[in-house]
Amino acid sequence: MRSFELKYADTKLYFGLNVVEKMRNHLNGVERVTIATGKNSARLSGALKDVETVLKDLELDYEIFDKVRANPTVEIADELAEFIWENGSDCVIAIGGGSVIDTAKVSSVIALSGGKAKDYLKGRKAKRFLQLLAVNLTHGTGSEIDRFAVLTHEKEKIGISIRYPDVSFDDPKYTLTLPRNQSIYTTIDAFFHAYEAVTAKSTNPFVETLAFECARIIGENLPKEQKLEEKYKLLYASMIAGIALDMSPAHIVHAIEHALSGINPKLAHGCGLALVGARAIYWIHKHCENSAKILMSLIGREVKSAEEAEKGFREFLKSVGFDERLSDYIGKDDFRDVERIVFGPLKYLLNRVSFEFTKEMLYDILEKSL
Amino acid sequence: MRSFELKYADTKLYFGLNVVEKMRNHLNGVERVTIATGKNSARLSGALKDVETVLKDLELDYEIFDKVRANPTVEIADELAEFIWENGSDCVIAIGGGSVIDTAKVSSVIALSGGKAKDYLKGRKAKRFLQLLAVNLTHGTGSEIDRFAVLTHEKEKIGISIRYPDVSFDDPKYTLTLPRNQSIYTTIDAFFHAYEAVTAKSTNPFVETLAFECARIIGENLPKEQKLEEKYKLLYASMIAGIALDMSPAHIVHAIEHALSGINPKLAHGCGLALVGARAIYWIHKHCENSAKILMSLIGREVKSAEEAEKGFREFLKSVGFDERLSDYIGKDDFRDVERIVFGPLKYLLNRVSFEFTKEMLYDILEKSL
Repeated sequence: MRSFELKYADTKLYFGLNVVEKMRNHLNGVERVTIATGKNSARLSGALKDVETVLKDLELDYEIFDKVRANPTVEIADELAEFIWENGSDCVIAIGGGSVIDTAKVSSVIALSGGKAKDYLKGRKAKRFLQLLAVNLTHGTGSEIDRFAVLTHEKEKIGISIRYPDVSFDDPKYTLTLPRNQSIYTTIDAFFHAYEAVTAKSTNPFVETLAFECARIIGENLPKEQKLEEKYKLLYASMIAGIALDMSPAHIVHAIEHALSGINPKLAHGCGLALVGARAIYWIHKHCENSAKILMSLIGREVKSAEEAEKGFREFLKSVGFDERLSDYIGKDDFRDVERIVFGPLKYLLNRVSFEFTKEMLYDILEKSL
Repeated sequence: MRSFELKYADTKLYFGLNVVEKMRNHLNGVERVTIATGKNSARLSGALKDVETVLKDLELDYEIFDKVRANPTVEIADELAEFIWENGSDCVIAIGGGSVIDTAKVSSVIALSGGKAKDYLKGRKAKRFLQLLAVNLTHGTGSEIDRFAVLTHEKEKIGISIRYPDVSFDDPKYTLTLPRNQSIYTTIDAFFHAYEAVTAKSTNPFVETLAFECARIIGENLPKEQKLEEKYKLLYASMIAGIALDMSPAHIVHAIEHALSGINPKLAHGCGLALVGARAIYWIHKHCENSAKILMSLIGREVKSAEEAEKGFREFLKSVGFDERLSDYIGKDDFRDVERIVFGPLKYLLNRVSFEFTKEMLYDILEKSL
């Protein structure tokens, strides 16, 4: 398992075992640090302890803000921004999955540019931002290497392009403590970053190189028992899907999922993608030839029709032990709300594909996923 | 054929048809430009005209330095640096293949940091450098996206890590005017960037993703008649091999070739690689498992031994029409010189593999390539 460094866009990424050790090279001139995290995983994974060791070694003051939860709200981003500002921090270290890193991206902007998180969701531009280091704890988000953040405002999840982390750390050992269902969810998130990137109008050869490789690695490793080597590979797959996503953003499946988990915040993002993904693939597959290529990478055999594509993906989910249904989280009564959000604030996501995504398709996906 | 942008390390790359048009976005504040190029290809390909159109549109003063040749010397880099400095240029635009871009990298450093090219070959560090835009005209160098430059000093070619271009332009249409033999040479250069990157100690999963894909594309497209679509793919393959090389630099095959074309500057770099490559693969293959993987990507079938690896690569060269021999350029009398250079100034390259490369191996490669 090799460690390596990669500079993509504005992010310097360290990948491999014990790479948090390299954090000390990026804290010159820093006096005060805010650590942003959630309640459990930073502690459970050992990442918080590793970061604290570096900070103590360097004799840096730090404060911990540990209130970020899954599907984070604009309010929590505002609260974190105030915490950073009041502490006069020079640097934010986010330790967590997508929720934590996304929140820290927005808060690190607010701390220096003012305003409220909801302003940025509505298009306000980041003028300045504080140094942001991200220690990634899942193998799905891609947020450690992309410029996106997703926050919830009044039950609507909005994704924005806001900033890259300055430095990120992907250490597979921190993902060993993820429960099996979370591992599946987050990997499915990585898969849909890859799947949507190559089926968007904005796809290109680099996106395809990375996305097909991501799908191949997931297909090979997600069904296995996940020891450190599998974690290393799944984390790598997730990271390159993050680059693919950054160059060619997500569309239909993410739009539907953001609506769903906006309505029911207990729905984990990757779980929501898995719930509606198979039938969404059915519709996307009809219009995008890359769908067949990426599914072949995932499941290792050719799919010759939209029906086979849907079936192949359902079987893959089953093979890794995913057996949830949309009806566990959302009822028919919610469908109108989903429609309102997908074809309202999230409509811009639907324009990223080369075919017209209709309301009939949305209802078909929701009904066949119940 | 899609156009796209990629930010890797310190380089912003534009890839696709007519991307030189985007150059105008990177000339704010620039008053005087030096165009660095060779005698022919910038004119023949149409690239010079496209660049001049942009500069005239923006009413920028520019001077053309067109004295760079294949296997460029430290003297020409010094001359270009003086030209830039005397013109008081704010920006260098390199239009050419690796020779031109490499020379411009070094000269753009000297123009602001002083000294002579040979000082930088001997380890002097670049303190400041002028803005460098690179319009790449071949599908092999990788120099448009890596930090390396290779210059010749007293018949010895030395490669150094010096700087990335700030902005690069890969337009496949400029490579349509490459003669068939040059197309083969430059593509073989790209292949060995990929091959050596994955067989170096410094390989990693990202390098492997890009290098295997590079080899697959070359295997599929180099044997074909090269119209614009094939050129687009070969240029893409070369670019991603450039990233692989930047992360995991070349070793044995490049070391031998640099010695050969240092001795005989009429030997094109890619041609030299092809001449000794098959037998070099024989030795590397014995020690690096990635050799089998990348050759499978290139030739589409499994190779089970070092003998099969050598044979497979020879057959590939034959299939694309390469039929030169080392004895066309170098005689047995030169072998001692090759040994002196490879095991002298270029010895550091040999340490990049995980096995001991011996003088016996070198002589075996040279003799079997005559």
